[in-house]
Amino acid sequence: MDRSPVELIRKKRDGLKLDQGEINSFFNSYLTGSVADYQMSAMLMAVWLRGMSFEETACLTKIMQNSGHTLGWDVDRSLIVDKHSTGGVGDKTSLILLPLCCLEGLLVPMISGRGLGHTGGTLDKLQAIPGMQVRISEDDARATISKYGGAFMGQTEDLAPLDRRLYALRDVTGTVESVPLITASILSKKLAEGIGGLVMDVKYGSGAFMSSLSDAKQLAISLVNVAKECGLNVQGLITDMNSPLGESAGNMLEVIECIDILKGGGPQDTRDLSLELSSEMVRMAKPSESLDTIKKRLQGYLTSGAAFERFCQIVDAQSGDVSFLEQPEKFKKAGLTEAVLAPKSGYISEIDVRKLGMAVVELGGGRKLVDDAIDYSVGLTGLSRAGKKINAGDELAVIHANDQSRLKIATEMVTGAYNISDTCEQQPLVAERIV
Amino acid sequence: MDRSPVELIRKKRDGLKLDQGEINSFFNSYLTGSVADYQMSAMLMAVWLRGMSFEETACLTKIMQNSGHTLGWDVDRSLIVDKHSTGGVGDKTSLILLPLCCLEGLLVPMISGRGLGHTGGTLDKLQAIPGMQVRISEDDARATISKYGGAFMGQTEDLAPLDRRLYALRDVTGTVESVPLITASILSKKLAEGIGGLVMDVKYGSGAFMSSLSDAKQLAISLVNVAKECGLNVQGLITDMNSPLGESAGNMLEVIECIDILKGGGPQDTRDLSLELSSEMVRMAKPSESLDTIKKRLQGYLTSGAAFERFCQIVDAQSGDVSFLEQPEKFKKAGLTEAVLAPKSGYISEIDVRKLGMAVVELGGGRKLVDDAIDYSVGLTGLSRAGKKINAGDELAVIHANDQSRLKIATEMVTGAYNISDTCEQQPLVAERIV
Repeated sequence: MDRSPVELIRKKRDGLKLDQGEINSFFNSYLTGSVADYQMSAMLMAVWLRGMSFEETACLTKIMQNSGHTLGWDVDRSLIVDKHSTGGVGDKTSLILLPLCCLEGLLVPMISGRGLGHTGGTLDKLQAIPGMQVRISEDDARATISKYGGAFMGQTEDLAPLDRRLYALRDVTGTVESVPLITASILSKKLAEGIGGLVMDVKYGSGAFMSSLSDAKQLAISLVNVAKECGLNVQGLITDMNSPLGESAGNMLEVIECIDILKGGGPQDTRDLSLELSSEMVRMAKPSESLDTIKKRLQGYLTSGAAFERFCQIVDAQSGDVSFLEQPEKFKKAGLTEAVLAPKSGYISEIDVRKLGMAVVELGGGRKLVDDAIDYSVGLTGLSRAGKKINAGDELAVIHANDQSRLKIATEMVTGAYNISDTCEQQPLVAERIV
Repeated sequence: MDRSPVELIRKKRDGLKLDQGEINSFFNSYLTGSVADYQMSAMLMAVWLRGMSFEETACLTKIMQNSGHTLGWDVDRSLIVDKHSTGGVGDKTSLILLPLCCLEGLLVPMISGRGLGHTGGTLDKLQAIPGMQVRISEDDARATISKYGGAFMGQTEDLAPLDRRLYALRDVTGTVESVPLITASILSKKLAEGIGGLVMDVKYGSGAFMSSLSDAKQLAISLVNVAKECGLNVQGLITDMNSPLGESAGNMLEVIECIDILKGGGPQDTRDLSLELSSEMVRMAKPSESLDTIKKRLQGYLTSGAAFERFCQIVDAQSGDVSFLEQPEKFKKAGLTEAVLAPKSGYISEIDVRKLGMAVVELGGGRKLVDDAIDYSVGLTGLSRAGKKINAGDELAVIHANDQSRLKIATEMVTGAYNISDTCEQQPLVAERIV
């Protein structure tokens, strides 16, 4: 406990494990200002290169969790669940699984982020609905949650502020891509929500943060083990991001796709993954039921229209104009469309999904910089998964744009994102489960 | 050249080599303020863990060399030589080899440091001579050098200021003990002196910065190779610091020992090492002569009294009271002395030399903190090298103190520093030469 910051940096630099007192001492001293930024960045680089055990990471996670305001709830903690995805293109499952879990009596304080780079953000998608408020106060969120079981929220400034400070420092010191630091960052924010259970959707592939399955697996194992150390019920799914999820990418276009799914239709991959994730969430609160039993019940909420209804109630509570959900034709479409056609027959053997995401950003539907404005109407539709058999001249994607020159750039990007071959392998949607 | 600081940190973090443009860009941006301390410390930690090639280190060395004022001289650069030692206990060779090299027509702008921790500093030893000025202006140093060939100086603020800034940052971020960073730090300051040749005395053993021979060798190889990359003539000697050098440790006591050596007497190890180092320095300027020929001539300067005379001239030029050198009995001795006696007969098999150095510090003869005041009169005499045969009751050392309680602590430390066994191995004074 009495070791100086520089001794603790040296210890981690030399590949040794820091005990709980040492981690507390170093990171709490950073909060109080007696460890400087330049000492923290040296420590973060040592952690990047030397790693941290699950115990060390859990200790750091708890310091970050408790560095600011934490939410408390008046119900049994096992009923409070959330999902976190490491991000991908067309990933709209949050909009679907929130109403499904709410219908099961779970309490879901879903704190989501904005899109940056090639991956979209749940908050941006929701803001495609006119009037929808996602920057709501804690009191407003609690009111909506107590009435409907869930609410869509952005992260507040006072939730795990140490995570925000460390992330800003990691961003400028080359220490972002560290499994223990990513783990602590994700889990600290989720733990500060006061949840009892968490389902992790760790994506791998050309559109994911981790392109290789083994890297994704390493992160998932870390997340699951550290979450357990922190007393959190957790389940990790490693899912395929070598294809975009669903047929649409782009904020408004994805909301329209969600409406279809919430009414029992829509593309199968997104519906399947949403059911997988929400079933896991429900089972955390109801461990005596089988996944299949739960999944069938949730599927029923889609076909019955109950899920769509609950979604509309929550959107309405957050000032969204529900008439757009009821009549999706009211959404103002982008002015220009162009189909990208397959140049030859064969199988879609490989998709550069990151490039599809960046095409959406080029169209104005995402951000290159944190403060960029968003054009909600642009994006891609008619997307297929890798493995699909196609004929020359079939549509690979339709581009929706509001600017001729951006359309041109996006068309080139989308065209270049597809590889067509005579043979191909198909990947399962859920590659592995980590418990 | 256009890569951002964070990309360059990531590159080094991933174990890749930075090219000249990249190193220039990163470190010069630090000088201009567009790379922050927290980015530099992350880079330094990445360098600590990933290393740097000789080329990379040479590039960094040159940036540090040219970050401030550099000295220029009006003579052939091959005549300007210096020595650097990595530090030890009783290491007083600088005081001897400066006059020897001056007598050979070499030009020695000897910039030395103060003692810190268990190792003494040349400037502190010289200041034991009443009146002696070591913080002299560049103009005064040039005047003395042009008259006598050499001068004793402290480092000025404007010599290699980047080294000072980086060292201060390394000190608080656990990144001091890095071979490339130590190499660049040492060589940049020496290169800024405008020298053409450098002899490195890299010490290993219980009283050295590097305790193992292999670590010392690694540093020596780095120093020699990087110096060559920087166009500097260089010779590395790896020398034994498992024994104190000479019979005395403590500023005034070491000056008195130097007077003996400069007059052809004194302990053999210090005389031998001084002759080894100065012969190497002279051969750099006179490569056609053999080391033996040079060494015999230098030995002649000691026995003839020429070396002592030149030393007195330089001390006089720097305002030192030469009467103390001519009548060493004028030095005010410490008030208390105590002999530490051998508890049994045998061989001195092992000496904890660092402990002897720390005993001098405890007596007040060195610094624990940079601003500590020095008592020049205290220290140890009658020291022997490891390997000496002794009888129970023989003197291992005599302690000179001015304070009864400090004497007690020092006596315990000196007693504990000696190991006496029935057998022992003797180490050669010069373990290896690196060219």
